[in-house]
Amino acid sequence: MALNPQYEEIGKGFVTQYYALFDDSNQRASLANLYNAELSFMTFEGQQIQGAAKILEKLQSLSFQNINRVLTAVDSQPMFDGGVLINVLGRLQTDQDHPLDYTQTFVLKPMGTTFFVQHDIFRLNLHNMA
Amino acid sequence: MALNPQYEEIGKGFVTQYYALFDDSNQRASLANLYNAELSFMTFEGQQIQGAAKILEKLQSLSFQNINRVLTAVDSQPMFDGGVLINVLGRLQTDQDHPLDYTQTFVLKPMGTTFFVQHDIFRLNLHNMA
Repeated sequence: MALNPQYEEIGKGFVTQYYALFDDSNQRASLANLYNAELSFMTFEGQQIQGAAKILEKLQSLSFQNINRVLTAVDSQPMFDGGVLINVLGRLQTDQDHPLDYTQTFVLKPMGTTFFVQHDIFRLNLHNMA
Repeated sequence: MALNPQYEEIGKGFVTQYYALFDDSNQRASLANLYNAELSFMTFEGQQIQGAAKILEKLQSLSFQNINRVLTAVDSQPMFDGGVLINVLGRLQTDQDHPLDYTQTFVLKPMGTTFFVQHDIFRLNLHNMA
């Protein structure tokens, strides 16, 4: 039950690291290391997925090669178990598709001296389709 | 450390109740009852606020009378303390302003037989300004 005073740096640092891996199709699969084998939940466009192995399957099913991504806002809050809640608002463009706004929420859970992603919710905002 | 199997209904029910109060300028102040005196964090357009009293001040500072709101997506996940993580994507229009997309993240924390809002992050997507 201790708030981590570094939550802001942790949130921004995590998001930078996460998207650097995500946006490189050669490194995307390594994101699975950031999730727990059992205790991680992902909701991807409404599809509910649990555990690093199934999350890896999902990540590997994403076929786009190139992503242009712009972050509009990264808001973080400290959680009472020492974790960090992060909400990202951004815009991304995959391969030759239209750019789309999206939102992604992460809950980082402390584990030893590091964190894993306990919760991950991703949604495109299809309102903005051209 | 028990997941609440009703997380989906709890998330959708909470969001319906929350916005019914928020969108009625006569009832908006009663939202303060959903937050804890000390243990609630709100980040409103990047402004960090802690505790029900200061959150109430923020809610009372919102001067618009009429809101049109459309929810695009409500995604919920169960949390390991029995709480619920909720991510909302929506569009709102206040008074005569332009409609704007927004994202709002809630963490509901169990307390007895009910919940309070432990975390609340709200962001307008100003990309969409006409």
